[in-house]
Amino acid sequence: VISDHDAIRTLNQRYARAADERDVDALALLFTPDATVDGARGAQTIAEWLDTMRSPRSWPTSMHVLGDPLIVLAGDTAHVDTYAVVHQLADPTSEQADLTLGIRYLDDLVRVADRWAIKARTARTLWMR
Amino acid sequence: VISDHDAIRTLNQRYARAADERDVDALALLFTPDATVDGARGAQTIAEWLDTMRSPRSWPTSMHVLGDPLIVLAGDTAHVDTYAVVHQLADPTSEQADLTLGIRYLDDLVRVADRWAIKARTARTLWMR
Amino acid sequence: VISDHDAIRTLNQRYARAADERDVDALALLFTPDATVDGARGAQTIAEWLDTMRSPRSWPTSMHVLGDPLIVLAGDTAHVDTYAVVHQLADPTSEQADLTLGIRYLDDLVRVADRWAIKARTARTLWMR
Repeated sequence: VISDHDAIRTLNQRYARAADERDVDALALLFTPDATVDGARGAQTIAEWLDTMRSPRSWPTSMHVLGDPLIVLAGDTAHVDTYAVVHQLADPTSEQADLTLGIRYLDDLVRVADRWAIKARTARTLWMR
Repeated sequence: VISDHDAIRTLNQRYARAADERDVDALALLFTPDATVDGARGAQTIAEWLDTMRSPRSWPTSMHVLGDPLIVLAGDTAHVDTYAVVHQLADPTSEQADLTLGIRYLDDLVRVADRWAIKARTARTLWMR
Repeated sequence: VISDHDAIRTLNQRYARAADERDVDALALLFTPDATVDGARGAQTIAEWLDTMRSPRSWPTSMHVLGDPLIVLAGDTAHVDTYAVVHQLADPTSEQADLTLGIRYLDDLVRVADRWAIKARTARTLWMR
């Protein structure tokens, strides 16, 4: 048995790995079925957002480096505020440039059976380079 | 109830958010009243340091991305060593350039009632770009 | 007494500090005597890898900024997957340029008496700049 804080940090890291591997099935497990994602493409249902993750990538590989999250627990819900630096990496043989983004994830989580899941995510891009 | 390690990580993240929002009242709550800060402006009392945080910013926005801290607990005190990358972001409509700094925070913490607070901070800038 | 998750995060941070200080004795304590390291120099025994850490550095200073690790515990073993950004810093008075690397550490850990140690590390460089 691990603490809620550690379970939530694990959720964050599973998100990073699944996003970088474009493992859409693994991503789907991290959200509730009625989750919403509000990010670069505006407000989306989780089904719409997962569809965009299935589409061809603009950069072939990525690395989501997440800082330690700010976790505020309230019983079976939690608010999680995570700073991330996302490295979008070009194919080195192409002329495409890498893109690095500073992103803040603001997530509402709920406890679902024995795990935590994201019910609402707002992803704000703070900078890109 | 959360563990001391998690309470200290939360303190770190509250510092990052308060520094980025220039919320001086929130910053003051993270230090003891007799705290000292030794950083880019030399050794300061917490009152002097908070005054510098109230003055106009050289960059309009910032993002303090903190790595996981190295925490050494000793009863009601703790030593916390945190690597941070601080993104100082220019107004995109200006000609000012962004500045990125690598900073190491070396903090002595004390337990005060039901929370942890910074009693002495040394902030060393390792690089800037 | 701290949790296994916190002990493993502490191991990660002790690695970062010892690597940055080139403290080879401190590094040796973080691995089992029969550990293997598979990285930029190919597969090495821990003795061989420590020897390379004793040799002159290509950059005089470094800063290993580690993201939060993905930890999967299984009794007295653990698998730890950590994203890191390593800043290799040139002497500012030289003409050498800084080098920044994105590295993924995939570690098999074992519990040894009252601590955790790395038994096998794979370090993959994802990008450099």
